[in-house]
Amino acid sequence: MKILVINPNSTVSMTRKIAKCATESVAEGTVVHTVNPPSTPTSIEGYYDAAMSESGVLDELRKGEVARYDGYVIACFDDVGIDSCRELATGPVMGICEAGLHAASVLAPRFTIMTTLPRVTAHIEDLVFRYGFNRKCVNVRAVDIPVLDLERCGNARHKIRDAIKQSIKEDHAEAVILGCAGMTDLVSWLESETQVPIIDGVRAGVCMVEALVRAGLRTSKACTYAEPRVKPQ
Amino acid sequence: MKILVINPNSTVSMTRKIAKCATESVAEGTVVHTVNPPSTPTSIEGYYDAAMSESGVLDELRKGEVARYDGYVIACFDDVGIDSCRELATGPVMGICEAGLHAASVLAPRFTIMTTLPRVTAHIEDLVFRYGFNRKCVNVRAVDIPVLDLERCGNARHKIRDAIKQSIKEDHAEAVILGCAGMTDLVSWLESETQVPIIDGVRAGVCMVEALVRAGLRTSKACTYAEPRVKPQ
Amino acid sequence: MKILVINPNSTVSMTRKIAKCATESVAEGTVVHTVNPPSTPTSIEGYYDAAMSESGVLDELRKGEVARYDGYVIACFDDVGIDSCRELATGPVMGICEAGLHAASVLAPRFTIMTTLPRVTAHIEDLVFRYGFNRKCVNVRAVDIPVLDLERCGNARHKIRDAIKQSIKEDHAEAVILGCAGMTDLVSWLESETQVPIIDGVRAGVCMVEALVRAGLRTSKACTYAEPRVKPQ
Amino acid sequence: MKILVINPNSTVSMTRKIAKCATESVAEGTVVHTVNPPSTPTSIEGYYDAAMSESGVLDELRKGEVARYDGYVIACFDDVGIDSCRELATGPVMGICEAGLHAASVLAPRFTIMTTLPRVTAHIEDLVFRYGFNRKCVNVRAVDIPVLDLERCGNARHKIRDAIKQSIKEDHAEAVILGCAGMTDLVSWLESETQVPIIDGVRAGVCMVEALVRAGLRTSKACTYAEPRVKPQ
Amino acid sequence: MKILVINPNSTVSMTRKIAKCATESVAEGTVVHTVNPPSTPTSIEGYYDAAMSESGVLDELRKGEVARYDGYVIACFDDVGIDSCRELATGPVMGICEAGLHAASVLAPRFTIMTTLPRVTAHIEDLVFRYGFNRKCVNVRAVDIPVLDLERCGNARHKIRDAIKQSIKEDHAEAVILGCAGMTDLVSWLESETQVPIIDGVRAGVCMVEALVRAGLRTSKACTYAEPRVKPQ
Amino acid sequence: MKILVINPNSTVSMTRKIAKCATESVAEGTVVHTVNPPSTPTSIEGYYDAAMSESGVLDELRKGEVARYDGYVIACFDDVGIDSCRELATGPVMGICEAGLHAASVLAPRFTIMTTLPRVTAHIEDLVFRYGFNRKCVNVRAVDIPVLDLERCGNARHKIRDAIKQSIKEDHAEAVILGCAGMTDLVSWLESETQVPIIDGVRAGVCMVEALVRAGLRTSKACTYAEPRVKPQ
Repeated sequence: MKILVINPNSTVSMTRKIAKCATESVAEGTVVHTVNPPSTPTSIEGYYDAAMSESGVLDELRKGEVARYDGYVIACFDDVGIDSCRELATGPVMGICEAGLHAASVLAPRFTIMTTLPRVTAHIEDLVFRYGFNRKCVNVRAVDIPVLDLERCGNARHKIRDAIKQSIKEDHAEAVILGCAGMTDLVSWLESETQVPIIDGVRAGVCMVEALVRAGLRTSKACTYAEPRVKPQ
Repeated sequence: MKILVINPNSTVSMTRKIAKCATESVAEGTVVHTVNPPSTPTSIEGYYDAAMSESGVLDELRKGEVARYDGYVIACFDDVGIDSCRELATGPVMGICEAGLHAASVLAPRFTIMTTLPRVTAHIEDLVFRYGFNRKCVNVRAVDIPVLDLERCGNARHKIRDAIKQSIKEDHAEAVILGCAGMTDLVSWLESETQVPIIDGVRAGVCMVEALVRAGLRTSKACTYAEPRVKPQ
Repeated sequence: MKILVINPNSTVSMTRKIAKCATESVAEGTVVHTVNPPSTPTSIEGYYDAAMSESGVLDELRKGEVARYDGYVIACFDDVGIDSCRELATGPVMGICEAGLHAASVLAPRFTIMTTLPRVTAHIEDLVFRYGFNRKCVNVRAVDIPVLDLERCGNARHKIRDAIKQSIKEDHAEAVILGCAGMTDLVSWLESETQVPIIDGVRAGVCMVEALVRAGLRTSKACTYAEPRVKPQ
Repeated sequence: MKILVINPNSTVSMTRKIAKCATESVAEGTVVHTVNPPSTPTSIEGYYDAAMSESGVLDELRKGEVARYDGYVIACFDDVGIDSCRELATGPVMGICEAGLHAASVLAPRFTIMTTLPRVTAHIEDLVFRYGFNRKCVNVRAVDIPVLDLERCGNARHKIRDAIKQSIKEDHAEAVILGCAGMTDLVSWLESETQVPIIDGVRAGVCMVEALVRAGLRTSKACTYAEPRVKPQ
Repeated sequence: MKILVINPNSTVSMTRKIAKCATESVAEGTVVHTVNPPSTPTSIEGYYDAAMSESGVLDELRKGEVARYDGYVIACFDDVGIDSCRELATGPVMGICEAGLHAASVLAPRFTIMTTLPRVTAHIEDLVFRYGFNRKCVNVRAVDIPVLDLERCGNARHKIRDAIKQSIKEDHAEAVILGCAGMTDLVSWLESETQVPIIDGVRAGVCMVEALVRAGLRTSKACTYAEPRVKPQ
Repeated sequence: MKILVINPNSTVSMTRKIAKCATESVAEGTVVHTVNPPSTPTSIEGYYDAAMSESGVLDELRKGEVARYDGYVIACFDDVGIDSCRELATGPVMGICEAGLHAASVLAPRFTIMTTLPRVTAHIEDLVFRYGFNRKCVNVRAVDIPVLDLERCGNARHKIRDAIKQSIKEDHAEAVILGCAGMTDLVSWLESETQVPIIDGVRAGVCMVEALVRAGLRTSKACTYAEPRVKPQ
């Protein structure tokens, strides 16, 4: 089985971090490749950035289809392009926000999302609502650290830990989803510090797409996600 | 006051039709210009088409800001890019699906949308849900005519009329929104044939943006719709 | 075009304040008249007050139809009588709570309402819910000042400003709707103090009704809002 | 215990029918009186009719408080004035739509409402939604018989029965609420004809108000339903 | 009329307390018996405890049918087994959480639940949501006292009172439901201390079941709540 | 990795069918065992049957913990006991209704469930609603075949196929979930007959639990799903 993980932003160091985490999670025999489009924004921090990366994501997915990948993960927490990608893909496509929500809802009756900047919380809340998890996902919090500063900023992990502890206390969160692919390396440390399940969407996404493929499931081509129509000129 | 209407697809004849209808609706003293990006799909019939037109729409909006337009209408029924456009725009931005829903909800307690192809109904239902009109908008029906065939297909208007009559009977619709900018010239005829208010999103959108501007209102720049962040390189 | 604004309470000074703000907002060529019924409560602060003013509002609307007004605004934040008025009216009818919500939802993904007394917040929340804006309108706050004290009470504007600032911080509000027609003169000052869009329902209502009329739209007479039935005696 | 049933319309024969049914249902020792305001519409068939009866209903309730009634039932299916009445009442107040919904939700997981005219279904759906029963109450159907024709029209009961059978088949209704106080005498016959519980809001309302009083419960005067404020003149 | 109250846990002293309160509330002529299954958990504090008591509850209900009870109350705040009981019961069945919610929603537009342990709040919130009261029931709070310590713990009542006062202030609660059958003896004291209606589900449940029986209503046997199917062996 | 599948009913032939399908779906190295409790109902067709099987399911899960299984699937479409099981389990627990819904929501924007008897549809709809998939899962249909007749009844598969085709046409379903573990062997045939993804909850459940385990995720023990409390005697 071959799974393609697409990091929508063009920051190669982040793609590497995602690749590492994605590769570790799958079953023997499953191959995971991680790519990013060449000329998208270096981070996705709002609707505009997402819009500027979507056609790049679609290019990667189109190449993926030629190379016969069995399934796809969109590794940005705003799940950029998952619906358009589904029109192109034969196998299943999941975003990491979506995957994180699916996983969390099985593990805890009440959880929260911890993301980067306040400006993206409304977008994430909108996704939560559209996916139907707005009852269980009781808050979307931002630690106010830009995506690319997650690594540069020395105390990022402590700020995230403290915000998770606050969320446990104030939101009664029983699990927490990390709301950015750039936090993917903090899972174990945060879990030991906070004693609640910490869900990383990249791991969840790769494993769940693998699961869907293994269960023999593919994107429905019956109507909405049928191949894009060829236009009369 | 200057309003810019952006037709996301690249079919110039449709832009002209939209322009005609948009211009007729505004107050004296309000100037409306209608444009389309040069190289987007010739019609928007799904998530993929929408994705392929969004950066073109953003280009037009950016030019609009330079030319100091007071407000914007996105004249495609999937409201492509309204959130990303709001990050760029100073004045209000509305999509024609959104505008149609706002208008219909004031005129009737129960209404429906009549659109082109079955493949876009799930997307429109998603918009209806996100905007909060899912209780009043009781159905999204498709007449199964591709966008560009609306003009070529001789009996399109009769099919639309019959579908509206069916919706009045079966859905108890008390008003109907036309779910495609290409149907904008059929309003009067359909209204006289069906005796319910027929709402065209283009007219509704232009007039409502004009209203918001006149009421002194602008897009909030407080957080979500603030200018896109400049990325460190 | 002629628009009639009906202030449901009988406080003439408030009617004058509303009239001033309503008149300033419309396009050239649009005439706005503002009236109040003669013997309704002096302020509407609860369901009972609203009930005691509704037949007076209907009297004014009936007179408005005789005088051939094109549309109507009900200028009280509990939108008293908008559904019963729609049975009498040919043109569109909007309440100022409704209009404020429509406007705010275009400008910001998350906003709040700032009203007068705690006793009316449940009623307003109910309207927000019925109109479908309960996801975007994240809180309804009361400054605990009775309607008629808004002018008498020297520091009303400062209390309102402080409450808005608190709402921006705690509710992450990106725009705020003023929840009383008596606050209509505070818009500019509050906007400059708080740096978020401040939405006044009167301005929004007058401009949106004007927009609907200009777009050629009328109340649906198909079923629910048909003329009241004449009763057999 | 003394319960006051208020029929909002001024048709005395209907008040008598309601009184008969209400009196039969209560425990020994409970006294029920049924009244109607003198000059309201002869039937309530829309928002306008409801608005024209609300102040009459409030007059009766005010008299009821002087006479120290323990609880109140508003015997019209649009529950006219229940919120304003609660500001005046010490004891509990229920509408018959509300009471029917509460009762039905205990008896069946899925039920419908059978009312008179199509023009009132949107209003009833709105009540169902506000009360929170929109998931269990899967349809509101109208037999298209005006309120006052329920008795005059010879085959009304057969039309209602047939519509109930259709609702069982098409809506999978497992119980049916009669959506008009004028249908109150048809319960037994309809139940034997259709074999599902038929719920009459008048009986349900009187018994449930009796239950609330017996349980020692009163309308909360903490905030929203506090006494109407006395206005400064 | 004979009503059977089933306390799902096996703590006899709690059964006695429930019996006392249930008996006081009904009309003359109504007989109430209170029982508990012999070998269920001594308190129900989670999904597991509830599961371990459900077949015991069903045994008691089955005996109740043989003895021809007219209706049933399940006197545990997680409403264990109400749906399975309805398959066995001829008359109406209510849980005390359900009954408390029905009662509260008539008395106040906004109320909360005060329960024992944090671990049961998610379960109660789920019930609130399924019954459709999630809009009016704005919070479920826990005082963090185990069920069986309610009596042993000297200051339980003061902790509950303080939590109610906090809920009035922070949640704007206008009524409060006691979220445990073991709090049933505190109603009067809490009501006098807090000045809002305090709703005990046992009283509410017994009175409402009595009301439904008096109104001639029974559990629908049309489909979902039909007798359990006899299995082929 | 070891996964335990628990068939709540005591029909061994069905357990075997489930085991076959479960075993085929997992990755190399994953061991799946399928068991059923010894004395539960032979099929689960309602709330009562579910209640009568839950303590048996919990017994199997308890044994599973002793044997150190990594995750659990409850293989009955009413997801009996998933919350109580989570209090006992260290690893993740999923029901097959839940798993089917998660999978379907990734593959299609609009899908339906095809189950056995009409009496279980309300229960399934309730699960759909609680899990948050009520917007995408647009209908729950029953073919009216008892569980144990699925194999005995010669034309069961044709009835199911025809019902799926009807659902595609009338509900616009783009994927269909099989609503009974006993249909698990029909997937390929139905998929080739109907051309939409057919989702079997057993396969989906086993693969998704495997995915969650592989992603390092466990049931949160923070509060709601903590070990059941030991009771004072």
